[in-house]
Amino acid sequence: MCAVVGIINSKDAARTAYYALFAMQHRGQEASGISVSFNHHIKTYKNLGLVNEVFNNENLSTLKGNMAIGHNRYGTAGSKESKDAQPIAANYLLGEISIAHNGNLTNNKEVRDKLIAEGAIFHTNMDSENIIHLIARSKKEHLQERIVEALGEIKGAYCLLVMSRSKMFVVRDKYGIRPLSIGRLKDGGYIVASETCAFDLVGAEFIRDVNPGEMIIFEEGSNSFESIELFNAQAPRICAFEYIYFARPDSTVEGKNVYEVRKNIGKVLAKKSKIKADMVVPVPDSGVPAALGYAFESGLPFEMAIVRNHYVGRTFIEPTQEMRNLKVKLKLNPMGEILKGKSIVVVDDSIVRGTTSKKIVELLRHAGAKEIHFRVAAPEIKFPDVYGIDTPTKDELISHKMSVEEVREYIGADSLEFLSLDELVSGIGSERKYSLVSFDGDYFVK
Amino acid sequence: MCAVVGIINSKDAARTAYYALFAMQHRGQEASGISVSFNHHIKTYKNLGLVNEVFNNENLSTLKGNMAIGHNRYGTAGSKESKDAQPIAANYLLGEISIAHNGNLTNNKEVRDKLIAEGAIFHTNMDSENIIHLIARSKKEHLQERIVEALGEIKGAYCLLVMSRSKMFVVRDKYGIRPLSIGRLKDGGYIVASETCAFDLVGAEFIRDVNPGEMIIFEEGSNSFESIELFNAQAPRICAFEYIYFARPDSTVEGKNVYEVRKNIGKVLAKKSKIKADMVVPVPDSGVPAALGYAFESGLPFEMAIVRNHYVGRTFIEPTQEMRNLKVKLKLNPMGEILKGKSIVVVDDSIVRGTTSKKIVELLRHAGAKEIHFRVAAPEIKFPDVYGIDTPTKDELISHKMSVEEVREYIGADSLEFLSLDELVSGIGSERKYSLVSFDGDYFVK
Amino acid sequence: MCAVVGIINSKDAARTAYYALFAMQHRGQEASGISVSFNHHIKTYKNLGLVNEVFNNENLSTLKGNMAIGHNRYGTAGSKESKDAQPIAANYLLGEISIAHNGNLTNNKEVRDKLIAEGAIFHTNMDSENIIHLIARSKKEHLQERIVEALGEIKGAYCLLVMSRSKMFVVRDKYGIRPLSIGRLKDGGYIVASETCAFDLVGAEFIRDVNPGEMIIFEEGSNSFESIELFNAQAPRICAFEYIYFARPDSTVEGKNVYEVRKNIGKVLAKKSKIKADMVVPVPDSGVPAALGYAFESGLPFEMAIVRNHYVGRTFIEPTQEMRNLKVKLKLNPMGEILKGKSIVVVDDSIVRGTTSKKIVELLRHAGAKEIHFRVAAPEIKFPDVYGIDTPTKDELISHKMSVEEVREYIGADSLEFLSLDELVSGIGSERKYSLVSFDGDYFVK
Amino acid sequence: MCAVVGIINSKDAARTAYYALFAMQHRGQEASGISVSFNHHIKTYKNLGLVNEVFNNENLSTLKGNMAIGHNRYGTAGSKESKDAQPIAANYLLGEISIAHNGNLTNNKEVRDKLIAEGAIFHTNMDSENIIHLIARSKKEHLQERIVEALGEIKGAYCLLVMSRSKMFVVRDKYGIRPLSIGRLKDGGYIVASETCAFDLVGAEFIRDVNPGEMIIFEEGSNSFESIELFNAQAPRICAFEYIYFARPDSTVEGKNVYEVRKNIGKVLAKKSKIKADMVVPVPDSGVPAALGYAFESGLPFEMAIVRNHYVGRTFIEPTQEMRNLKVKLKLNPMGEILKGKSIVVVDDSIVRGTTSKKIVELLRHAGAKEIHFRVAAPEIKFPDVYGIDTPTKDELISHKMSVEEVREYIGADSLEFLSLDELVSGIGSERKYSLVSFDGDYFVK
Repeated sequence: MCAVVGIINSKDAARTAYYALFAMQHRGQEASGISVSFNHHIKTYKNLGLVNEVFNNENLSTLKGNMAIGHNRYGTAGSKESKDAQPIAANYLLGEISIAHNGNLTNNKEVRDKLIAEGAIFHTNMDSENIIHLIARSKKEHLQERIVEALGEIKGAYCLLVMSRSKMFVVRDKYGIRPLSIGRLKDGGYIVASETCAFDLVGAEFIRDVNPGEMIIFEEGSNSFESIELFNAQAPRICAFEYIYFARPDSTVEGKNVYEVRKNIGKVLAKKSKIKADMVVPVPDSGVPAALGYAFESGLPFEMAIVRNHYVGRTFIEPTQEMRNLKVKLKLNPMGEILKGKSIVVVDDSIVRGTTSKKIVELLRHAGAKEIHFRVAAPEIKFPDVYGIDTPTKDELISHKMSVEEVREYIGADSLEFLSLDELVSGIGSERKYSLVSFDGDYFVK
Repeated sequence: MCAVVGIINSKDAARTAYYALFAMQHRGQEASGISVSFNHHIKTYKNLGLVNEVFNNENLSTLKGNMAIGHNRYGTAGSKESKDAQPIAANYLLGEISIAHNGNLTNNKEVRDKLIAEGAIFHTNMDSENIIHLIARSKKEHLQERIVEALGEIKGAYCLLVMSRSKMFVVRDKYGIRPLSIGRLKDGGYIVASETCAFDLVGAEFIRDVNPGEMIIFEEGSNSFESIELFNAQAPRICAFEYIYFARPDSTVEGKNVYEVRKNIGKVLAKKSKIKADMVVPVPDSGVPAALGYAFESGLPFEMAIVRNHYVGRTFIEPTQEMRNLKVKLKLNPMGEILKGKSIVVVDDSIVRGTTSKKIVELLRHAGAKEIHFRVAAPEIKFPDVYGIDTPTKDELISHKMSVEEVREYIGADSLEFLSLDELVSGIGSERKYSLVSFDGDYFVK
Repeated sequence: MCAVVGIINSKDAARTAYYALFAMQHRGQEASGISVSFNHHIKTYKNLGLVNEVFNNENLSTLKGNMAIGHNRYGTAGSKESKDAQPIAANYLLGEISIAHNGNLTNNKEVRDKLIAEGAIFHTNMDSENIIHLIARSKKEHLQERIVEALGEIKGAYCLLVMSRSKMFVVRDKYGIRPLSIGRLKDGGYIVASETCAFDLVGAEFIRDVNPGEMIIFEEGSNSFESIELFNAQAPRICAFEYIYFARPDSTVEGKNVYEVRKNIGKVLAKKSKIKADMVVPVPDSGVPAALGYAFESGLPFEMAIVRNHYVGRTFIEPTQEMRNLKVKLKLNPMGEILKGKSIVVVDDSIVRGTTSKKIVELLRHAGAKEIHFRVAAPEIKFPDVYGIDTPTKDELISHKMSVEEVREYIGADSLEFLSLDELVSGIGSERKYSLVSFDGDYFVK
Repeated sequence: MCAVVGIINSKDAARTAYYALFAMQHRGQEASGISVSFNHHIKTYKNLGLVNEVFNNENLSTLKGNMAIGHNRYGTAGSKESKDAQPIAANYLLGEISIAHNGNLTNNKEVRDKLIAEGAIFHTNMDSENIIHLIARSKKEHLQERIVEALGEIKGAYCLLVMSRSKMFVVRDKYGIRPLSIGRLKDGGYIVASETCAFDLVGAEFIRDVNPGEMIIFEEGSNSFESIELFNAQAPRICAFEYIYFARPDSTVEGKNVYEVRKNIGKVLAKKSKIKADMVVPVPDSGVPAALGYAFESGLPFEMAIVRNHYVGRTFIEPTQEMRNLKVKLKLNPMGEILKGKSIVVVDDSIVRGTTSKKIVELLRHAGAKEIHFRVAAPEIKFPDVYGIDTPTKDELISHKMSVEEVREYIGADSLEFLSLDELVSGIGSERKYSLVSFDGDYFVK
């Protein structure tokens, strides 16, 4: 995951970037940062923590300027080092640049090894650092050509923002695996962001998505932007997980409202097997739209019978006494009054390792539910994603190791159903293709 | 508001109190604190901030002992002083005590003035400090008699926990205006808490509510508790706002599940006037159950068309550029894709000053809603509450100053309806009475 | 110890109090606080920590007003509770007051027990809280009379500042055990402070000391102050420890410059026994003036052969490997190049438990010193002080348990000499008496 | 300035490095950091702040291993960016390395420009980053050869520590401008540090200095070290400022104890012109030894008549009211009782801009000094240093712009004398040469 934002030709760009990052906090909670270009100098502030924790009036007010890029980092467990925050700023032959990058390079190791063999040094663990090196090592005269050359050497999923002292280059990989949209701010400036929910908060109007393989060039002081088709048109393949649980429901990804897509998926689930039950219960928050769709299609009552506590932060104090399932209970509390003696359909967005689903089923049983029919608004996840999602290794994916029936038994549900791949595609909408690697193992990026 | 918790005869009582306070964070976010009794000494840690901010492993581990009381403070604007956190610990003739108090004393000023005239000094602005003074000044021999004497002099709403070095006294006022329940922990210890959702998190079994006018006495090492009827039985009057928006939906208040009550209220609202609309939309989170009830009764589709961002903390950086309605937009984002051109019923829990409702209507209009029918899951709030809720003064209450039609015009809705008092009572359930001061101005506590 | 400061009729009084407290940081490092009177309301900010840690521009700027009192607390080990910071503010019959108190009440327990028996409650462990209670319980009409009545009931050493909304009362006990001086600020306002070094920093002119038993009354807006002789004149007895090590060398205590007094004491030490040695070496910083006097009188060279590291804060990381004497070495490093093979006179301000002296002698030996003649610029400390100094109990005082020869052997010096009581008195100056309880056990305060 | 430390083959190396950095805090207060090599991985923690602020038990305990390098950064005004802390760790062809560097490269710009032209990217503003690039770009097979090649391309003053996963390379430039010594820890491990005062604190024995132009190679598990003469022997030129005010008085630099050297310099000053005066007064702390030497030679009494407040941290609250000379007064307070009507010789370590000296003279006059004879324990500073000291530009150096008489008039002293260059050299000791660029402008490093 991760979120990126770029602000061009707008007064107090860092502040607008801050709000945009805040709206996209769900895409990355480990670290946050903003670079501004001001007075021929690029200045960066970044740190571990939530947007609201990293930034305060004091440090934000040191980031002056009309051009900014920002980044929220979605960290992988164990890698929590402050040096791995973005944007990454550096000096090179043409001066200062800063980059923000959402995605994963599939040939990261090869490129890094080659660069290192040539004498490059790496200060971070991020594959994004490759891109700066490739730009710096290009022999081309202009930054734009250097970026093009650099991108020719990398593979994978990316949305990339490169800011120099007077320009901003915005690129989306040729498959368009991660979303990226362009909007217009009220003062005439432009905004580029991973999700359109950022536009709503800062009062920007959606213009259009950046196309797969497209490079957009903004220039300081210019009222328009330039577009270049960098790569041959490919069948675009937005990552299906954006619809399943990454994106905020109020975002529009590739022309489709996420909330609507999730409701559709829920309807598809309901059509699959007409189970007799007393109610449909979502696992909040991401299971809500699919559960609504399920209830609509099936005619069963929709009940918010699992209550979510939103005060849960990233730190809490470990219990010393025996408190079963405390981590899940801190977030989710099923209501006995609603559930007692009832047969229920539970709708969750996906099953990854299966441990949380198992605990939810336990909590529901403890609350008195008689029958628990678990419905998953995604297909079985059998393969690790390599395009920017922090999925566990194959061996930790429960659906890689177990059949549906075995998973059902493991989590303790009375019945269990996943979406099929075709159902997922029809739920999202049939007219274009998706990245489905986690489900079908087709690592299509060459 | 505020939340109180007491833990008796349970290993690591402070840790259990911490989790209980965490589950009741919604009842008070300004300050939090815990006192423990250990080794013949009472120790207290309290500070401004959320439970998770005030406590960490380091300070929590200094609070050893098998008996603890805790408190979350719901602050009134402007009074943010760290000295006003609870519990309040003090030394007096019989040794050390600590108290935690939820509620408001209606004769606070008279009692305080009388105490001050007798030479008492007050270190805080809290009316709770009166109670300690009255206990300390009583000439009775035992703490229990002193508490009884002290309570004879105060009026108002309260749930009170008094911890000495070996006992805990738990009292609820004779009308039972604020909720208070008793549960049993897995290790045999007892828990007393403002809301039953705290029991769920710490794995306690609900035993019963503390009765209005009842005093419960727990003793260190004792496997049971004593009950005394302190005051003559009164018609009990739990505060209706507990059902309307204070309590968590998964709590059971006076035998009624809050979520169910809110759904019922929504059904009553739907029966009132059969408006033609495309969908029912809740203002999340507290408007959700009533909107579900409304949708169920009316047959209109339920849509989560306003998305709430739960990352909003209590601090955020002020925008310098003109960002209309930013404070509301940081929390709530209506989805244009769902709302465009639609006629909608919006359900919110209440209208106090009217300013937020006005902004919500503006955001909905901006998102494209054609008709906006605003439905309020409470009667018009015409009078300040004096029993523990921080309602503004009369002059700030929009329904005190304006008719329903005027409020409708002010907030910009196409239609507006409140519950009537009778409808509220029938929605909650007819068999007992409620505190309805904010609606009818009947300040019944004498 | 502790430091107090009062500012009257001066613009931005809290800021001046802050600088004065900063100059008197050496008198108390555990906690710091300031109360201001502004707009008929007393506001207090206090916390654990150094003056520079407790206060920042943000909290200091909330303390508006022309009248302020401040306090640095010198904590006793183990009592580190934030509730024990001063000033103590309270509401009582005549309104709000705040007090700051330097000293110790010798009848603390009796007064506290009596107050508690009458129904008073205590929120802190500080004896200063007694004074507020006594003021609040007095039946007198005016604050001034109440203070007088209250002081009639307490015994011990104190410098007391009482601030109401429009007046400041300043009292020194009848023996004048702790120092307190009056100065005039450049803008015409007054300052009262424990030490005159505070006047130098804020640019105030010294006017005179507050007399033992005197009450000074300042009033808002008044260009002068009133003086009342509260108690019958007693032979004044300033605490000898102020000269020995409490006060800063640049302060003038009771008309005598502390640095000069310490130098005199060093001369007296040198006259005592004419030891043959290569040099005189002070234990920095407080041993420096006496060592200078010793060198002057004896004609021996003065060498700063022990270097002090001033970066030592109150926290440091414990060594896991065996590092002998690390705590002392973090502060003090003797130089082998100067000391090797030399016979030295070491001058320290006093010996309390003997453990530090023992470590210093060890470090000096390790650095190569051949002969170590330890000279102490104070008499043997045989009795605990009860008038405001945190001396350990009798049993921890090495000179209570051991003869001079035994102490010499314990610390490992080749010779050891203390001042006699008469020598101390003559060193300070003969014309007035001192509090010498720690040396002679004459607990003279009745 | 800056301080470096290396620990080899010693248990808990990071903790020992921490204490060594603490002892060398005076060499750099802006930032601090430590890298350890453990389990085939180099881990670094660094941040802005004092050693005691940057490190705590939590982060220090994550730095496991038997080999560590550390660094204190002496920041230049305005450059306070956390990315400019050291050590600098990086990945390159042979794996991970980390470097710590004390000094300044005089051909920094040329090297950096050349590297950038070849496609290198720079993440920091530090010239030390050049060295890592040069190592990474070398085509040599082994790290040692790469370091040698890299050092062939840089000029200037440096003490360099390079740590790989199993070795530590320690190099001192061929002139030996900055000090660097080797010691042996009690557990048999080695320590390398900028100053010997670090050895005293951690209980290490001094072995010898690293020679100018020498490379020392330590290897994990080896009980000895290897020495290589990297550069042709040059006349060594230790920086004279180390003796004048950088180094701690208890350090031994190139075989000479700093305290003794400063005392000698004071004697030389006294011989220069036999002024009649009542006393010699040092500007504490660095003026103390020279003032002692002056007093010894002249026979005038030595008086600590300016008292230094050591609680001054790096932040303090700005005064709003007119407080003349507050910044200097927060640190230094001259005592009127000693100074009034007296003729004094004031000894300071050096005069750079002249502004502080001017304020000190003002404070002394205000305290009543009749005649002020200012003596400077260094020659006139006429040229910027380029070998690692943060001297201001030529135009800010008062002695570059003014004659001695003009400076005297500017600071307001009755007389003023500096050391001559020859006097400085004779004061330090004649047998070897020094770097005197700041005084004679001989930029000898080619």
